Amino acid sequence: MTTTRVPIVENILNANDRIAEANRQKFDAAKTFAINLMASPGAGKTSLILQTIQALKSSYKVGVVEGDTAPVTIDADKVTAVGMPAIQINTGGDCHLDAIMLSQGLSQLSLDGLDLVIVENVGNLICPAAFKLGTHANVLIASIPEGDDKPYKYPNIYRGISALVVNKIDLTPYVKFDMKYFTDGVRLLNPGVEVFPVSCTTGEGIPAWKQWLKDNITKAKH
Amino acid sequence: MTTTRVPIVENILNANDRIAEANRQKFDAAKTFAINLMASPGAGKTSLILQTIQALKSSYKVGVVEGDTAPVTIDADKVTAVGMPAIQINTGGDCHLDAIMLSQGLSQLSLDGLDLVIVENVGNLICPAAFKLGTHANVLIASIPEGDDKPYKYPNIYRGISALVVNKIDLTPYVKFDMKYFTDGVRLLNPGVEVFPVSCTTGEGIPAWKQWLKDNITKAKH
Repeated sequence: MTTTRVPIVENILNANDRIAEANRQKFDAAKTFAINLMASPGAGKTSLILQTIQALKSSYKVGVVEGDTAPVTIDADKVTAVGMPAIQINTGGDCHLDAIMLSQGLSQLSLDGLDLVIVENVGNLICPAAFKLGTHANVLIASIPEGDDKPYKYPNIYRGISALVVNKIDLTPYVKFDMKYFTDGVRLLNPGVEVFPVSCTTGEGIPAWKQWLKDNITKAKH
Repeated sequence: MTTTRVPIVENILNANDRIAEANRQKFDAAKTFAINLMASPGAGKTSLILQTIQALKSSYKVGVVEGDTAPVTIDADKVTAVGMPAIQINTGGDCHLDAIMLSQGLSQLSLDGLDLVIVENVGNLICPAAFKLGTHANVLIASIPEGDDKPYKYPNIYRGISALVVNKIDLTPYVKFDMKYFTDGVRLLNPGVEVFPVSCTTGEGIPAWKQWLKDNITKAKH
């Protein structure tokens, strides 16, 4: 099995990487900073996107690509309701976005004038880690009620990220979550990752996250 | 692409179903009730297993099969620490268990004297829905902080379950969760599913879940 299976997987990933490179060139040409936002279901991807738009909208234009496994537009509708462009990619049951899906999605979203594009991946800590999209940064949202052992259980997704948002810190008084155990696991896998503890409900921590985005938006313009 | 891809997927699923049938015969021969426990990361699979063992241990013996994508034994260690047999299946990065993995796992777990086997699937709301394991019932754990829109976003996993545990109801005062919107989504997809609101932290709701298991354990003995 292994000898026939591995080359096929490698070819798929190579083809994906070529399309990802083309997506990157598209973002670079438009001087648009693009992030691939990953998380388990319910960690707060859409809530962070809405908080981010709120924080940036006086100075920047943000576009959103929503990846969903089912043909529901719940998340995309929330984004367009606050006046930013959003398109939806339905993966047809697949557990992740890939570069080809994003490429097709980008054909419906004009990057002209967009400072930031947030690609909301499918809610999943496993499959999205294996597919480059061509964005500039992979960002993961962990959340306090998910528990402090997730870096140990889903190491691959923690290895490949530039920034980690730890959401729902307002729930810290009500759940068991050992921040040191969690952070030790994260640092072991990814010593350089930037960590942003936030609450999308109270807005706590959002200014630091906003600053990181602003720095990267500025870099993408040069 | 589609015409060559679909038959391969179908063959894999057919092969899986045959092994699942053999797993089922093994459970039936041992008169052991077996469940496939699915959830997103951090919804409380291991917490529910520990609460279940606590609730049943005076009358029943419970075995646990832990599916993990990484070679960590955090969950299996918690089960053996409370005196019940547990084995671990490392999926090697795969996003779900399949019947073949379970079959291999069962070769290490004697069903002799076990009244209940809980198979803890990989934390994921997408991939596990596609693979039968041969257990008697699919059980899903949703959790309050994940949000009330999950049935709408991950319909496939909600369609194929016999029981739904809604965990972390102790967090209801602190998060937005419209139980009617959630339940309407569940009933639309799966009108007959049994729903058990619980808190694995406070123990609330566990007696009803215990009774459902006891009824099924009794049925499996006949």
